[in-house]
Amino acid sequence: MIGKKIDAIRLGDKAEFGKTVSESDVYLYAGLTGDLNPAHVNEEYAKKTFFKTRIVHGMLSAGFISTIFGTKLPGPGTIYLRQVIEFAAPVYIGDTITASVEVVGINVEKNRVTFKTLCVNQEGKEVLAGEAVVSPPKDAKN
Amino acid sequence: MIGKKIDAIRLGDKAEFGKTVSESDVYLYAGLTGDLNPAHVNEEYAKKTFFKTRIVHGMLSAGFISTIFGTKLPGPGTIYLRQVIEFAAPVYIGDTITASVEVVGINVEKNRVTFKTLCVNQEGKEVLAGEAVVSPPKDAKN
Amino acid sequence: MIGKKIDAIRLGDKAEFGKTVSESDVYLYAGLTGDLNPAHVNEEYAKKTFFKTRIVHGMLSAGFISTIFGTKLPGPGTIYLRQVIEFAAPVYIGDTITASVEVVGINVEKNRVTFKTLCVNQEGKEVLAGEAVVSPPKDAKN
Amino acid sequence: MIGKKIDAIRLGDKAEFGKTVSESDVYLYAGLTGDLNPAHVNEEYAKKTFFKTRIVHGMLSAGFISTIFGTKLPGPGTIYLRQVIEFAAPVYIGDTITASVEVVGINVEKNRVTFKTLCVNQEGKEVLAGEAVVSPPKDAKN
Repeated sequence: MIGKKIDAIRLGDKAEFGKTVSESDVYLYAGLTGDLNPAHVNEEYAKKTFFKTRIVHGMLSAGFISTIFGTKLPGPGTIYLRQVIEFAAPVYIGDTITASVEVVGINVEKNRVTFKTLCVNQEGKEVLAGEAVVSPPKDAKN
Repeated sequence: MIGKKIDAIRLGDKAEFGKTVSESDVYLYAGLTGDLNPAHVNEEYAKKTFFKTRIVHGMLSAGFISTIFGTKLPGPGTIYLRQVIEFAAPVYIGDTITASVEVVGINVEKNRVTFKTLCVNQEGKEVLAGEAVVSPPKDAKN
Repeated sequence: MIGKKIDAIRLGDKAEFGKTVSESDVYLYAGLTGDLNPAHVNEEYAKKTFFKTRIVHGMLSAGFISTIFGTKLPGPGTIYLRQVIEFAAPVYIGDTITASVEVVGINVEKNRVTFKTLCVNQEGKEVLAGEAVVSPPKDAKN
Repeated sequence: MIGKKIDAIRLGDKAEFGKTVSESDVYLYAGLTGDLNPAHVNEEYAKKTFFKTRIVHGMLSAGFISTIFGTKLPGPGTIYLRQVIEFAAPVYIGDTITASVEVVGINVEKNRVTFKTLCVNQEGKEVLAGEAVVSPPKDAKN
């Protein structure tokens, strides 16, 4: 249970995680965060909005990027330092979101790796873009 | 169920949301996102890390900022465009996190408001910093 | 984080909260309360009942009234004293319930406010009626 | 899966249901209902209140009474018509609540049974009192 150290990481390395976002995901997330914005949990309200139906909390998709850092690349032991998120398009209940990260910068001295981060839906449409900086694990007990 | 329009928003306007983060919050969030990083859900692993115990997903605290935008300031009808997050310090299970936002920029022409965003723990220690851009509701059906 | 004190409350003041009730809401509520009545969680059983499908626990809708008192009107610091509930019609999974409260009595001496309470579905049909008595917050630390 | 019909119900019949209310129960209930009143989910806020710590949503305990009607007495097929609730004392996280109901009135003609309803904590202290009216199942397919 230890992720990749910085000397095992290369520019262009990629990883991804995908999930179909269910209504129960949205409702539980609303409950955890307290974000019961009617755009997320009130279909009658949502019908009258620009989006015509309930949409998923953007920050829930952002969580899938964290999932990759913490479990895949670099993996356990990684410290998450910075995330820039651009919410590019709405996510709807039932959409399948694929989050992906790609190494675009490596600073060995500071033990920091910069990633391009992205979430797309089942049609390949970009719903979330951005960039992240993480500190990969330094040793087995980091 | 409609938030503040841009002409009702002033520089310096603030809002906040606070919650004690429970173990069940962390576990449900892990399940929703798939981020079962042992640092969050494996106490035996976590004991041997720098933090000595399980820590809360940083992105869960980030969600509290979204809660403010969607339910308080500007409120329902707001479109979340951009969020920069600096993860400043770990959050532990049982910490009480207070998220707050403050208006630092208003662009009436583009209908965009920039906020300073912050999360502190029960000791006032900054755990998450950053900046956000949102588009407040334009009319009752936005 | 402090609600309205009694001298800021007027006869006729109103507040509401709405949510589309999901299957996951019903199942989680069943789990929390232990009310696994087949009318709520067994579709095969429910098909043969008068209602022809699973119905939502009436007391879950009643909870939305409490949400208003605790978060909107009067808001944090309110003490809930009494609630009379008339279950007027079934709520089905997927219904959007709007709970609302209206001030119908104010007793400044006893610091008590009486509300008419109501839940309607997306067609405006009354599903729950009743009356509540609460004690609004007295000071910032109540 | 069919409860007792009215002719099998006697004055004085009793049933009960008990549960230790966990922090996760309170947090999930807050999420389901949207009642993130800080008195329930913010320990730092709650410390400064009269109760000195987070309290459980009163309406969650009320749900245990519904559990008895729907699963024990009269049981499946019962239609819940009316509930009067007096919130008598706070419930704290970790308290064990025993809900009980006792038949105090039977109207065979209208097929209605009136119950005294009660919730006590582990010290026998009454936390919730009240009265309910239900319509027991009439036949196997009600």
